[in-house]
Amino acid sequence: MPHLNAEIIAIGDEMISGARIDTNTAWLSRRLAELGVDVHFHSTVGDTLSHNTDAFRIAVRRADIVVATGGLGPTRDDLTREAIAEALGRPLQLDEASLKHIESMFAVRGREMPQRNRSQAMFPLGASAIPNPQGTAPGVDAPSPREDGTESRIFALPGVPDEMKTMFDASVAPAILSLNHAGRHIRHSVMKFFGVGESDMEERLGDMIDRERQPRVGITVSSATISLRISAMGETVAQCEEMIASTRKEILDRVGDLYFGDGETFEQQHAVEAILREREQRLVVIELGNAAPLGDWLAALGDSPVIAGGLSLANVGELSRFAREPIPPASDDADDFAERYNACLQVVRKRFHADWIVMVDAYPDLTIHEGSVLPASPLTIHVCDPQGNVASQHKRIGGHPSIVHPRIAKAALMFLRSELKAAATK
Amino acid sequence: MPHLNAEIIAIGDEMISGARIDTNTAWLSRRLAELGVDVHFHSTVGDTLSHNTDAFRIAVRRADIVVATGGLGPTRDDLTREAIAEALGRPLQLDEASLKHIESMFAVRGREMPQRNRSQAMFPLGASAIPNPQGTAPGVDAPSPREDGTESRIFALPGVPDEMKTMFDASVAPAILSLNHAGRHIRHSVMKFFGVGESDMEERLGDMIDRERQPRVGITVSSATISLRISAMGETVAQCEEMIASTRKEILDRVGDLYFGDGETFEQQHAVEAILREREQRLVVIELGNAAPLGDWLAALGDSPVIAGGLSLANVGELSRFAREPIPPASDDADDFAERYNACLQVVRKRFHADWIVMVDAYPDLTIHEGSVLPASPLTIHVCDPQGNVASQHKRIGGHPSIVHPRIAKAALMFLRSELKAAATK
Repeated sequence: MPHLNAEIIAIGDEMISGARIDTNTAWLSRRLAELGVDVHFHSTVGDTLSHNTDAFRIAVRRADIVVATGGLGPTRDDLTREAIAEALGRPLQLDEASLKHIESMFAVRGREMPQRNRSQAMFPLGASAIPNPQGTAPGVDAPSPREDGTESRIFALPGVPDEMKTMFDASVAPAILSLNHAGRHIRHSVMKFFGVGESDMEERLGDMIDRERQPRVGITVSSATISLRISAMGETVAQCEEMIASTRKEILDRVGDLYFGDGETFEQQHAVEAILREREQRLVVIELGNAAPLGDWLAALGDSPVIAGGLSLANVGELSRFAREPIPPASDDADDFAERYNACLQVVRKRFHADWIVMVDAYPDLTIHEGSVLPASPLTIHVCDPQGNVASQHKRIGGHPSIVHPRIAKAALMFLRSELKAAATK
Repeated sequence: MPHLNAEIIAIGDEMISGARIDTNTAWLSRRLAELGVDVHFHSTVGDTLSHNTDAFRIAVRRADIVVATGGLGPTRDDLTREAIAEALGRPLQLDEASLKHIESMFAVRGREMPQRNRSQAMFPLGASAIPNPQGTAPGVDAPSPREDGTESRIFALPGVPDEMKTMFDASVAPAILSLNHAGRHIRHSVMKFFGVGESDMEERLGDMIDRERQPRVGITVSSATISLRISAMGETVAQCEEMIASTRKEILDRVGDLYFGDGETFEQQHAVEAILREREQRLVVIELGNAAPLGDWLAALGDSPVIAGGLSLANVGELSRFAREPIPPASDDADDFAERYNACLQVVRKRFHADWIVMVDAYPDLTIHEGSVLPASPLTIHVCDPQGNVASQHKRIGGHPSIVHPRIAKAALMFLRSELKAAATK
């Protein structure tokens, strides 16, 4: 069976004008790929009826599945229902069940439904409603016959990302699965990695990320953190889970040294916090130079008893002033850090009531490199354990300015994780 | 003269697969609007020739101006030149001047040009090269006659954002200006604001942000900071600047209370730093709770002598432990903060050798609200001046989780700015 193909249409003046960046479309593209659907086209139009109609006409002609987002609100700007009706040459008609749902959403909030919201219960003849548990706007599921007798199918969803995602996963994905692979199930698993660039990761994974592989392994990169999302399709849920387990094992065989945890939103700081919680030990972070992202990331873990705090200072001179401890001049031995800075670190440890210290020396100044790639600059990451032993790692990190500081912070977390693990086995 | 309209085509497998978010298209949309061009459609296609050809054919039919990004590299995946040639029904031919430029780019780096880069000097018959000072890939400027005798015009640029933007501003914008407004000039000015939501801002600006106004005023919002970009078109540069000056005055009359500075990348922390530098006074920031963005932002100002550092702690209890000063229990007077916390603040001020302190108490925990809107939660911002006087501001801030912490940090900077100004007039 040949792959189904799809087009995604994003609707809204705020997108066509460039005022807002569209992230719905990329999310939908990844989800459709997992369902075995090849996305061929993305289109974006503003809130202009003729442009919407044009986009739907073209999409129905060239795509098996059309997923649209936006334009389902109750105002005169919201034209998606009308555009689909016009593109398919069908009238709009009222769906009583949808009207009741919309009225009930208002009733819950103790309000009467404004007359204009009635438009949200209008559907092109032959289309049906896609339930929206979070909002008033139901989606539109419209089978769309072509002149040659074949059929395309339009799924129109709201533009609000949370509503769109919930509705896609709950209603659209199962519908596509039954079009494409009737009776089959799909399950996902997300693994997280840090430590190499995207192209090195792809090389090490080899054929595992082929688009035709089953289960499919999708790779995405966000600020140097790599996510692998495994999507297994099978006759039963158990079969999906078995396929995922064996694919996970294969992945760990190839890149297990870079793996740090599971889940879309799981980051290295979560892994660090879990280890510290288990040991009931507290961590303080010292960030020198031109950034302090770790202080922010660690604070954002939620009220955690093991995060002792963060300290941001310009340089080691300021650290010495803060601690009121002199730092002896460097000797020829480049690795006498522990000796020279020990007095400063002990002051910080005591002030913050911490067991572990991680220190970044130092984040580079990006203000002089705006827009251009930053050459790899040397820096040192120090980890001080509860006994006062200091381990140091020298790195050279460069790249696009927007990514340099997070990459350094993540390298520090990676080094901290390895020191935490080493301490456990001592 | 009716407005010209445009379509933007983004090309690349990384975009159609959802692996990368396209930000070029939004940038181009805003620039085209400033040139008086209405953008009607965005299209995205992967590195598949037939999809590219289809997209260009449709775009030439329905848009006066087509701006494409991506697919100009030297590999077999780079199909933009071929797709344009095919869509226009014209052969590709070698442009000697472009070939020489590409060879010279390699010569500068002491390398011989690989044979495959020759493809970057091939252009559809009738098209010309758009110079690319930063990279090897020249752009393509292809006048595109339609069957009805009218003409569209394709400008194809690289996908690398820095190259794309430089080439658009240097070559494409002047070409469009001469199509649309021959002999006219265009000048821009960006003003920055903080303190109200986008819809309140729009209401206060009223007809100033009409799309038909001259000079045009474009509004964009990034993490609650509002940018107004004024684009003036005139017979002379002097006339443009005059128009900009009077529009700036009108804007300041309406929303001057929210204005904090000029320039695309100018933020409130830059304004704060400028004041501190002038007075030779140092600032330390204390961030309590579940975030510490200010420590990061202030550090990122570049090596600045007036940023004394940042301190991130979980709560006032930890602040008391850090300072080794007890905090007396709150009295009935809700505003006795200065008295109760004074001993703690003096310790922090001395440790960091600071004059001013700004403290946020506290950033809310977002981990329990993932994906849903955070209800407005109460928090207090304290500013302590060099004489030890503490001013406090109570706020309630909520919203989408991704925006809550930056919004709080920006509210703190706004309060700090007003206290810095008040101190100057005392």
